[in-house]
Amino acid sequence: MLEEIREQPAALEKTLRMGLRPAANLARAIALKKPRTIVLAARGTSDNAAQFGRYLLEIATGIPVSLAAPSVTTLYRAKLDFKDALIVAVSQSGESTDTNLVLERGREQGALTVGITNEPASSLAKLAEHVFFVRAGRERSVAATKTYTGQVMLLYLLAHALGAKIAIDDLRRVPGWAADALKLEDEIAARAERYRFMDQAVVVGRGLNYANAFEFALKMMETCYVVAERFSSADFLHGPIAMVERNFPLFLFAPAGVTWDGTRDMLARLAALKAETLIFTDRSNREAAAHPRAIVIPANIAARGARPAELFTPIPYIIPAQIFAASLAAWKGLDPDRPRTLSKVTRTL
Amino acid sequence: MLEEIREQPAALEKTLRMGLRPAANLARAIALKKPRTIVLAARGTSDNAAQFGRYLLEIATGIPVSLAAPSVTTLYRAKLDFKDALIVAVSQSGESTDTNLVLERGREQGALTVGITNEPASSLAKLAEHVFFVRAGRERSVAATKTYTGQVMLLYLLAHALGAKIAIDDLRRVPGWAADALKLEDEIAARAERYRFMDQAVVVGRGLNYANAFEFALKMMETCYVVAERFSSADFLHGPIAMVERNFPLFLFAPAGVTWDGTRDMLARLAALKAETLIFTDRSNREAAAHPRAIVIPANIAARGARPAELFTPIPYIIPAQIFAASLAAWKGLDPDRPRTLSKVTRTL
Repeated sequence: MLEEIREQPAALEKTLRMGLRPAANLARAIALKKPRTIVLAARGTSDNAAQFGRYLLEIATGIPVSLAAPSVTTLYRAKLDFKDALIVAVSQSGESTDTNLVLERGREQGALTVGITNEPASSLAKLAEHVFFVRAGRERSVAATKTYTGQVMLLYLLAHALGAKIAIDDLRRVPGWAADALKLEDEIAARAERYRFMDQAVVVGRGLNYANAFEFALKMMETCYVVAERFSSADFLHGPIAMVERNFPLFLFAPAGVTWDGTRDMLARLAALKAETLIFTDRSNREAAAHPRAIVIPANIAARGARPAELFTPIPYIIPAQIFAASLAAWKGLDPDRPRTLSKVTRTL
Repeated sequence: MLEEIREQPAALEKTLRMGLRPAANLARAIALKKPRTIVLAARGTSDNAAQFGRYLLEIATGIPVSLAAPSVTTLYRAKLDFKDALIVAVSQSGESTDTNLVLERGREQGALTVGITNEPASSLAKLAEHVFFVRAGRERSVAATKTYTGQVMLLYLLAHALGAKIAIDDLRRVPGWAADALKLEDEIAARAERYRFMDQAVVVGRGLNYANAFEFALKMMETCYVVAERFSSADFLHGPIAMVERNFPLFLFAPAGVTWDGTRDMLARLAALKAETLIFTDRSNREAAAHPRAIVIPANIAARGARPAELFTPIPYIIPAQIFAASLAAWKGLDPDRPRTLSKVTRTL
């Protein structure tokens, strides 16, 4: 898992570079079809990438996005009206029967279809009209890392193809920020020891980093067997905060930008409850970087005039969290590459 | 909380009866405007009701539904294209600033707007063109129960107004099934003692009962401070099942119908892992009712030819779960009406 985490800068660079041509083709198809809605279909880690895509695409394109509930199509056999939709299926293996079926139904109705996968020979790659490949090489660890960030990168390209103001030159800087995040490996490995006996936790993210909360929680569930819940800060205040008592462990993604005010307020409430908080941020959020327990990526990610400011934080921010999960598994004496009970390809309906 | 749980059959009957006229008005507006998509906006328990609405409306009307991410509108100020949409805001208090703002933006663009709330004098009741009231009286417990089932009832009426094949006469039977569920109160209170020291748990639901998994988990978080995760069975198999070890407590909603095959398979996997499972079902799922640890509502809810078979299970099924949470809080010596840290109205952006 750690090896694959380290491969991410190179994989991201290649995924972006080789995605430019399919993105240009897709942009032409979009100009003709002008989709009115976007439907994202995925499961597991890919569903977390889709959750990111949901925020990114709505924020950057103004087109309403829906995360598909695959069972509506697979089990209940509902005939959804997908005529004006862009259907995007995201699957590492490309063999998720349920998400493939959502895409197939859309295609039958004349919807524009996009597949995002790691596997050129997969069913998804054959089913979708437009296919984007995560160029991360084979992922051997059951816990997905480099395919998640690769999928996120391709979702930026998808937004670009839809006309969002996301410059390719800015995207080219993301692998470098990922490399900056990797510099934290030793620091995080040392910090993780403190959490050796943690068996439950809460992860909070907001907006563009909401998906990272899901993804970090999933990594801790899969590799450390920690019962890790994930919330947006808004939903967390609507009830679950009652669980928090002295020393309760919480992890927050804390970029600069529009979500910071709410995150700062929440940190103050958690401090009053004497909870144990660890935050992920970068140098451009000076206030967050000064927090007593902050993992600070040594780069100014939000300081280059991106709109919204934290637009490019999700990929670099998940990397310290991935390292944390892998390190914590090691401290707990577990093998993060082979979680009990799991296999790499999961087929569900 | 228990008192309010017991008020549900009467509140549901009144909510349905008084909702018929607004539903007829809405049906006329829908016939004129023909919305192409539906957007549901809510937070907390109301968001769980919205999650139910998402499945119900897609399954029963074929119109694609999206659960709004309010921060896209409130924090990022994205201008989403809501022209052809039906926007439904769900809020017990009617004072959730963020969900109200989503509805307002929709209304400005000419979208059809619906509010579902408990409070006739609320901002939401003023903002929405079509308003449906939960007729549950004042809810005094911070943990919402009767307003959740009332909101679910109104979402059936909304589906009906959109042309779904849901007979009002069938809906009139739901309060009776809720009363059947209440007969289990003593049995559940006794069973809950076994879980006195439980501090983490997983709740699983699928399709129409997926929202109940969220709602039951939220009740346990709010009133018992149990770190309770919620999953669909499909997502659970994609990773989180690795957390499950001998005696790990899981709760499953197990109606008859299209979700049962998957739930049965999952119960077999959990049995092999020696997990501790408790399931909620009714007499019409005989196989589930024969499970060694089953809470069986004494009624044949799925046996009357509804399509899908479990169409009317969500309201009766959440009631034993509400009783369980209230009872467990009592066994733990906690006051479920006044969870620490929380207040009844939560304002977030």
